[in-house]
Amino acid sequence: MLQVKTPEEVLALIQSKFQPLPNHTESVPLTEALGRVLAEPVTAEEYVPDFDRSTVDGYACRASDTFGCSDAIPAILTLAGQVLMGEGADYGLSRDSCVYVPTGGAIPRGADCAVMIEYTEDYGDGTIGVLKPGAPGMNLIFRGDDVFPGKVVLPPGRVLTAQDIGALAAIGKVTVPVARRVRVGVISTGDELVPPEKAPGPGQVRDVNSPLLTAMLTDFGAEPVNYGIVVDDEQLLRKKMETAAAECDAVLISGGSSVGVKDAACRIIESMGELLLHGIAIKPGKPTIIGRAGNKPLIGLPGHPVAACFVAQLFVLPLLARLMGRTQEAYTVTAELTESVGANHGREQINACHLRRENGRLLAAPIRSKSGLITQLAGADGYFIIERDCEGLPKGAQVQVTLY
Amino acid sequence: MLQVKTPEEVLALIQSKFQPLPNHTESVPLTEALGRVLAEPVTAEEYVPDFDRSTVDGYACRASDTFGCSDAIPAILTLAGQVLMGEGADYGLSRDSCVYVPTGGAIPRGADCAVMIEYTEDYGDGTIGVLKPGAPGMNLIFRGDDVFPGKVVLPPGRVLTAQDIGALAAIGKVTVPVARRVRVGVISTGDELVPPEKAPGPGQVRDVNSPLLTAMLTDFGAEPVNYGIVVDDEQLLRKKMETAAAECDAVLISGGSSVGVKDAACRIIESMGELLLHGIAIKPGKPTIIGRAGNKPLIGLPGHPVAACFVAQLFVLPLLARLMGRTQEAYTVTAELTESVGANHGREQINACHLRRENGRLLAAPIRSKSGLITQLAGADGYFIIERDCEGLPKGAQVQVTLY
Repeated sequence: MLQVKTPEEVLALIQSKFQPLPNHTESVPLTEALGRVLAEPVTAEEYVPDFDRSTVDGYACRASDTFGCSDAIPAILTLAGQVLMGEGADYGLSRDSCVYVPTGGAIPRGADCAVMIEYTEDYGDGTIGVLKPGAPGMNLIFRGDDVFPGKVVLPPGRVLTAQDIGALAAIGKVTVPVARRVRVGVISTGDELVPPEKAPGPGQVRDVNSPLLTAMLTDFGAEPVNYGIVVDDEQLLRKKMETAAAECDAVLISGGSSVGVKDAACRIIESMGELLLHGIAIKPGKPTIIGRAGNKPLIGLPGHPVAACFVAQLFVLPLLARLMGRTQEAYTVTAELTESVGANHGREQINACHLRRENGRLLAAPIRSKSGLITQLAGADGYFIIERDCEGLPKGAQVQVTLY
Repeated sequence: MLQVKTPEEVLALIQSKFQPLPNHTESVPLTEALGRVLAEPVTAEEYVPDFDRSTVDGYACRASDTFGCSDAIPAILTLAGQVLMGEGADYGLSRDSCVYVPTGGAIPRGADCAVMIEYTEDYGDGTIGVLKPGAPGMNLIFRGDDVFPGKVVLPPGRVLTAQDIGALAAIGKVTVPVARRVRVGVISTGDELVPPEKAPGPGQVRDVNSPLLTAMLTDFGAEPVNYGIVVDDEQLLRKKMETAAAECDAVLISGGSSVGVKDAACRIIESMGELLLHGIAIKPGKPTIIGRAGNKPLIGLPGHPVAACFVAQLFVLPLLARLMGRTQEAYTVTAELTESVGANHGREQINACHLRRENGRLLAAPIRSKSGLITQLAGADGYFIIERDCEGLPKGAQVQVTLY
């Protein structure tokens, strides 16, 4: 008999019982890498910039040639030419001379600073007056200041942001090694379920979990495979589970409000491999099953969509992150409860909420409903957790909201 | 001569000078609605649930038939049958009788509560003993408790989450009216630019802004159209701008470190319509131009990728949100500065940062670099803003970090 586990125990179990998928790296063009999980560290192979550059419009010169100058006594430098954008400046600069350089332009050898054009005067006779002394390095970026060969630019496991894409473009990394999208089979069970496009008959309801979980998986960068609705028949269910397990990296089976289906899911998972967990001490979400066939997670989620959603969020996504080698960050925003929330003893309680701003304060309005599903899902901005031994939170209490 | 505007003035200008795109609604299947912007309110057309349901496994009965019962003196009810999942219970329940009902099952007329199976005894002779009295409504969800015809389930402007997809599935909304993806042309200018796949020659650098902005736009749910790199030639630039404006809902042109390109962009935008803004009081990002041709934004972004990124984040995305009728929420996480940050007077300063957790505290490590771009972009987790009149923030100060 498996004990009900706390959320911390479940997360530890996920780390210990599952391993990153082997050989799961694939190459994608930079233009398709947004949101993908970096599979290997990205190391620069070049200098960025590859030449010494000016950060201002002005004149590149030797700082020492300008020491002591002022408005009253400008340093007079010979204008030796100008640097054009996109062209090198592969020549030496003589003493007491300067070249015009635009922002981002290369500077010639010998120059060690750039004086802003605002601090100069062009006398029109081939000489430039510098009114403020430069200092070595002033207004310059030197070759490799930003990046040099061997510098680790991005660590593996990172979900690539638009900013990362920009950085990869800068170093010419136009093919990116990313983790293959993990394939996740989604099965809904229950005699009462009809697909969303069908009008429910008496005693029937629409299958919410398939579209919900499919969307959550897509959002997470996994590849959902929808196996549809299976009626409450152990043989059919077993066959579908086996097909899904053969075709996917992980299988989610949700539903079965009836005790029979729960038991069937347990028996099937056990026969396919190993049952690791039966029951998590959270509310909602207790009737959760986690098993494995080799390194392949087989997960039984609660039938109630709100419970399935929370369990998927709290445990399935971290498990998929583990398989994909994805670094999982969960940032929360701090908000103030608009009303008190009671809680049960003995189980962590998860509450969906709406967020709104009022007089500069961020407020979290807990969503109350009697097992309602649309009300709990639609328009919710995130959720907060009330700890196991807490009997509830008063109005005005600060909660940490995880955003959807 | 246009004045430099504060960020607040720019956001107000965006609201006043641009309108949501007309006729911008399109229908997509529910399976493709994730992340799209809802174009119209979604109103339920049915009851959910469409029948009175039990929330527990147990017996549906009349509460009044159980009043006064106890472990010692159970209420004895005649077992009139069982409800099957997915089937209706369209019959009346006689007095002093009950039916077995699974969680989620329909309950017959006349029953007004469900008693959990744990509080009953099956005597095996066709009668059930109830050991705890029920109360009207106990363990039931009534028809339409969750949703009823006419109830607004989701407001327009919302970016659809996986949870929203679940709610839409529940009410059978399998075709969803969403805002068309706004098409945004992206042009990079500068003689020094080469595409990311090319090795830069002397004085050249790779074009970072095109891939960066393209990724930001994709991430935001817009449809970027990449017009490539244009050399610093006013005629060519004008032609490209006109093509992009004809084909897109908005045009972003970035770059041109040189003064000439900036002036050219101004002249071109002015000749195509109206120049609204030249310069924003932020650092980095000052050299920004906003204009319009009719309701079509024409935006000149700074050439430096970090500046272009911040301006796009702070002003371009809100502008696109305005065009798409998208409700724009910007939540921030609170973090503690790992070191002091100096700031300029007179301009809001935007700082990229890394986030990390240490002893339960969330720390923001500001990224320092001398105009470096990769360093500022790669691996950054978000940014914080130092207000205009603040001279800097000390180590340990709380900052509000907007996540990428």
